[in-house]
Amino acid sequence: MGQDPIRVAQFGLGPIGLGCVAAVLRRNDALQLVGAIDTDPAKAGRDVGELLDGTPVGVVVADDADQALERSGPDVVIHTTSSFLGRVADQLECCLRHGAHVISSTEELLFPWHRHPELSAGLDRASRERGVSLLGSGVNPGFVMDSLALAASGVCRELRCVEARRVVDAGKRRLPLQRKVGAGSSAEEFEARKRAGTLGHIGLVESLRLVAHGLGWPLERVEERLDPVLAEVDRSTEHLSICAGDVAGIHHTARGFVAGVQRISLDLRMYVGAEAPHDHVRLDGEPHVELRVPGGIFGDSATVAVLLNAVPRLIEARPGLLTMLDLPLLRSCGSVPAEGPTGRAARGAPSA
Amino acid sequence: MGQDPIRVAQFGLGPIGLGCVAAVLRRNDALQLVGAIDTDPAKAGRDVGELLDGTPVGVVVADDADQALERSGPDVVIHTTSSFLGRVADQLECCLRHGAHVISSTEELLFPWHRHPELSAGLDRASRERGVSLLGSGVNPGFVMDSLALAASGVCRELRCVEARRVVDAGKRRLPLQRKVGAGSSAEEFEARKRAGTLGHIGLVESLRLVAHGLGWPLERVEERLDPVLAEVDRSTEHLSICAGDVAGIHHTARGFVAGVQRISLDLRMYVGAEAPHDHVRLDGEPHVELRVPGGIFGDSATVAVLLNAVPRLIEARPGLLTMLDLPLLRSCGSVPAEGPTGRAARGAPSA
Repeated sequence: MGQDPIRVAQFGLGPIGLGCVAAVLRRNDALQLVGAIDTDPAKAGRDVGELLDGTPVGVVVADDADQALERSGPDVVIHTTSSFLGRVADQLECCLRHGAHVISSTEELLFPWHRHPELSAGLDRASRERGVSLLGSGVNPGFVMDSLALAASGVCRELRCVEARRVVDAGKRRLPLQRKVGAGSSAEEFEARKRAGTLGHIGLVESLRLVAHGLGWPLERVEERLDPVLAEVDRSTEHLSICAGDVAGIHHTARGFVAGVQRISLDLRMYVGAEAPHDHVRLDGEPHVELRVPGGIFGDSATVAVLLNAVPRLIEARPGLLTMLDLPLLRSCGSVPAEGPTGRAARGAPSA
Repeated sequence: MGQDPIRVAQFGLGPIGLGCVAAVLRRNDALQLVGAIDTDPAKAGRDVGELLDGTPVGVVVADDADQALERSGPDVVIHTTSSFLGRVADQLECCLRHGAHVISSTEELLFPWHRHPELSAGLDRASRERGVSLLGSGVNPGFVMDSLALAASGVCRELRCVEARRVVDAGKRRLPLQRKVGAGSSAEEFEARKRAGTLGHIGLVESLRLVAHGLGWPLERVEERLDPVLAEVDRSTEHLSICAGDVAGIHHTARGFVAGVQRISLDLRMYVGAEAPHDHVRLDGEPHVELRVPGGIFGDSATVAVLLNAVPRLIEARPGLLTMLDLPLLRSCGSVPAEGPTGRAARGAPSA
């Protein structure tokens, strides 16, 4: 920081990716947008600024990652294309081959070693060979149900149990998230989509494994459970309507056992109409620690923030496939505030 | 971890230091106590276990640090002797000279570069020359009013203001803390002790400077203020009595300004009879983040925890005089839990 700006390319131009582009452009003191990649024919060939507010910024969206990375030579790629590592491993390897550090929102990449041991080993090798680092993160997984709990545990001399809970009112989120939690489905459709694996939150077990890894706790068993939350009354959002008795969203849990005892419990509720959304961490230890985030941390803008804030930290980190445990403390690296703070009323605005 | 235990020496055997000794002994899978140092004639020459629960542990307290370090050859020294860097710089240099990493509870060492630029440069040089790292930390300063706020800022894309507040009921803490906040003094005695600098919380401005440093905000001005909190009614603790109108404790604030605008505000209240003790972080940014710790993080056991949990992270870190921003995520590295978790009732026990 403070010297030449870091050259950043954006790979994936969905809502999160475009949010990253906007954030990179706002931080032109420290970051320089040098490339934008998306295979969508409706986006490729257009100036990426046109996809934001219409103002060209001089960076044309490429659909060929290899060519675009060769031409633009980024220091860091921000990657936001899919939740599943199997679908993006080629994209990540392409970035590494071009000598770029990669921060990715791919949920399975948060702690991929258990679900994808061979892909993980390959990506780790490719990163080390090129002397760059690769990290999966975001707000969930990446912060509220894993890193935040681990950070809070830093004040515990002994620790017996970790519990993290997140309650999100899906009615206030984007349509894709409402669809992802099955809002508006019948209970039968929910079961069918659950069996097909097209429903629910990706990364909960990865969060749990990261927590266990960070604490040095050898997990012997993980139990995961995904249930529908049914609407008790008719509900409607900006995007869809739900009849009473149909699905409002999900209740997703993961529990980790060490030596026969449940030691880690993650509990995620995302449904339309959830009351009192919040994040909550409870550590049963010496001392006990309880930590609440009233309103909960707002997912979309926070995910963009985590990806952006990881950029300077990635460059400092060791080469390889990393986890959040390998980075120095992630903190806001937004521009220095120049205008006055907003008033108390604005600060009291709902954050979820 | 998992290989040879880390050899630890304890320098300073007050309540926090003895807490560290007890914690090191409990973690004999990963840590080995190899030395104990204190200049108090009542402690020197005795087995350090006698100062705990009376059971000898085979480590005799030495009053000569140089000899003790030469003989014991620790990997890491946990240093807990004084709040003021000027008083301990020689002790720290002695540890570094013997090739030991040092984690210290010295409050001024959290971010010493501004108050003690020459001492800091000398300690940094000495650390680098020996290839070891030196860090000041604890729970406050070190966590609740600085690292926790910085960690929460990791989910902010933009950040305008940081506020941290800590309210501690000094009546539930040790007598030295009650004395440190002036509990039981008259208002005149408080003013005299304040002028003499023997009162109040050390490290609040260091917390503020660490936050500013972590965010890359150039502070142009810091305002610090220390006021008494007067008892509205007669109060008594296990250790002392306070008449209505006399001092119950302190209200200590530090505010940081960037380009004429207040951007960081730290507010610490420690007094006998404080109601609803808690820690609170509020970030005015995108998104807004609010984080509450009901009851507050209990200072004494948490400080021991932070020092202990820093031990394995220090060894991984780069050489030099470090801050909390240079360490990988600090998390609990207590032993793997072997017994069942405590029940809900136990978990609901007051934590402050």
